[in-house]
Amino acid sequence: MSVTAPLGFRAAGVNAGLKPNGARDVAAVINDGPSRSAAAVFTRNRVKAAPVLWSEQVAKGGQVRAIILNSGGANACTGAPGFQDTHTTAERAGAALDDSPGEVLVCSTGLIGERLAMPELLAGVDNAVAAAARDGGLDAADAIRTTDSVAKIAFRRSTAGSGYTVGAMAKGAGMLAPSLATMLSVVTTDAELTPEQCDRALRAATGRTFDRVDADGCLSTNDTVALMSSGASGTAPDEEEFTALLTEVCGDLARQLIADAEGASKSIAIEVVGAASEDDAVTAARAVARSALFKCAIYGQDPNWGRVLAAVGTTDATFQPDELNVAINGVWVCRRGALGDDRSKADLGAREVTVTVDLSAGSAAATVWTTDLTVEYVHENSAYSS
Amino acid sequence: MSVTAPLGFRAAGVNAGLKPNGARDVAAVINDGPSRSAAAVFTRNRVKAAPVLWSEQVAKGGQVRAIILNSGGANACTGAPGFQDTHTTAERAGAALDDSPGEVLVCSTGLIGERLAMPELLAGVDNAVAAAARDGGLDAADAIRTTDSVAKIAFRRSTAGSGYTVGAMAKGAGMLAPSLATMLSVVTTDAELTPEQCDRALRAATGRTFDRVDADGCLSTNDTVALMSSGASGTAPDEEEFTALLTEVCGDLARQLIADAEGASKSIAIEVVGAASEDDAVTAARAVARSALFKCAIYGQDPNWGRVLAAVGTTDATFQPDELNVAINGVWVCRRGALGDDRSKADLGAREVTVTVDLSAGSAAATVWTTDLTVEYVHENSAYSS
Repeated sequence: MSVTAPLGFRAAGVNAGLKPNGARDVAAVINDGPSRSAAAVFTRNRVKAAPVLWSEQVAKGGQVRAIILNSGGANACTGAPGFQDTHTTAERAGAALDDSPGEVLVCSTGLIGERLAMPELLAGVDNAVAAAARDGGLDAADAIRTTDSVAKIAFRRSTAGSGYTVGAMAKGAGMLAPSLATMLSVVTTDAELTPEQCDRALRAATGRTFDRVDADGCLSTNDTVALMSSGASGTAPDEEEFTALLTEVCGDLARQLIADAEGASKSIAIEVVGAASEDDAVTAARAVARSALFKCAIYGQDPNWGRVLAAVGTTDATFQPDELNVAINGVWVCRRGALGDDRSKADLGAREVTVTVDLSAGSAAATVWTTDLTVEYVHENSAYSS
Repeated sequence: MSVTAPLGFRAAGVNAGLKPNGARDVAAVINDGPSRSAAAVFTRNRVKAAPVLWSEQVAKGGQVRAIILNSGGANACTGAPGFQDTHTTAERAGAALDDSPGEVLVCSTGLIGERLAMPELLAGVDNAVAAAARDGGLDAADAIRTTDSVAKIAFRRSTAGSGYTVGAMAKGAGMLAPSLATMLSVVTTDAELTPEQCDRALRAATGRTFDRVDADGCLSTNDTVALMSSGASGTAPDEEEFTALLTEVCGDLARQLIADAEGASKSIAIEVVGAASEDDAVTAARAVARSALFKCAIYGQDPNWGRVLAAVGTTDATFQPDELNVAINGVWVCRRGALGDDRSKADLGAREVTVTVDLSAGSAAATVWTTDLTVEYVHENSAYSS
């Protein structure tokens, strides 16, 4: 189903020859309307790939006819010629669709610092646009994989009004070698929305989902999440209800990314509760998620709460050190900043691990998802480009 | 030589039975004066071990008669009983020296979340104070080792006035399993200094040395660097000259820590030049030093400049992405934010690696020292406490 679950969308994934293994590497997602309201959010890295610089400008217009995505090359750190390559890609898609290149988003993922093979890519754009069909969602999701072991897709239905659908695909996330852990996602809906509604809903949804996946703390040069709405369902949803549904879809994809993170043996939810504010909760959770020592301990199935405290202690969140409590898989191994229940009761054998930190400073909470730091992670990220 | 190189100091390192392997685990460094001006800097982690909480108060007085250090237990996250243990340790040393416990610094390193074996420790304090001698510097440096493969010592002589000496010992640093990478250092001098001079000089020296060693980004609960001056040389040095000499000693030790970091195969200097300010240079260098992807690449001897740019791009330092240049071991593999010279010329075979980042935004510079992220690091930090 993927991005073609909602009415009004066609998609395709084709093999253009960018990947050495002959797998699909170019995807197109086309919005046939009647509306083409859209929004997108991008990496906060100041070193932005050419497709991000291009797509930021397109997204400002609030109207998107199509998205072209390629794996097999990130087109990052490629200077003015790289930007021209992105521009040419959008023009080729615009020509194939007889539409404006200024309403074509472009996303790329793969190695950085190398130019794309443009003749192959442009032929792939032609083929993808020509092949785009109502049943092409899975092929598109397949074409944006790098080392993702499975395509990531999600969809949700709402019965509001005459009903509407949200569909989505994604690839990547930290720890997904190769490249810089680029995360790309395209979300489609046949709900009737204004560009402003798309923008608000997408920022709210990604802020609580993709933004809280923190596998290795590295921000990619290419991260992009785009939302396109066709209006083809005829339903203009309540914005709050739509945002909730969109957040569900994005959260579903975010968890799929963590579950498939290569080089990881654990999916770890860092829940911070008892925080003075949601920002404090996110700050504390992120500090734990970024502690190399903590992530190694979980890999070793070691319920090392001291490393959790030490990570929280680096933040400016409101708390008193002697009021911190930590549970690992439900066992409160640290109470009031010191030794708590028997740590041997905290079984870390399963892939899913939950670490709960109680700041004892309020009632706000947040969860950040991460992975462990493993020997396999080091292997995969130490040699891929050699 | 170590901490007993300067006149006026005695030291010892004894085996008190805190370490299971029977190695030395309690050290004493005693200042016999005539002066006892001192200063200390501590971890910025808000979760502070009991000895840090105690020693912060002692250091405020500016007078230190002795330092007691133990390996074999960090006495961190041990609550009020742990603080009482530190207090008792200082009282025992004070009694053995017939001096004030309020002028005894205490440092601990080892596992956190566990109480110290107090009968053994207190007997060790008695023995260390009794054994302290002018030739005990090396034994003291040996006693504070955890998994350091060698004791770290340094000293420098000045010919100013009638001459004076700075001696020092250190242990630990990020990536030194076990525990939270605690870094302890004691620096002694027979120069005549006021407590205020000690404090200013120590903060300046550590700010450019120990503070710029960033092995795994994890702040310990126990980090302590103390400076004690006996005045026994009779030389009251120029403060600027003394600070420069102290900075040399601390820099020497900092590089020894990186060179001995267990689980590391590379010692990496991240030099940022062309920065608008020294703060910008440190911020950018630290971001690179903390990038797991960059550190894995260096482990794999992969001159992956894209990961350097992506790390710099996460900072708020002043720069334009298309004006960044990166050299790896002197080869400018990235020029103006894009592909530069042939990366195959950047030989990463040796342990020492230098990464130079030119922000093209000014004339300030700074260097941060780090290590690579290795399979051995993950091994050592995933299983030690199980």
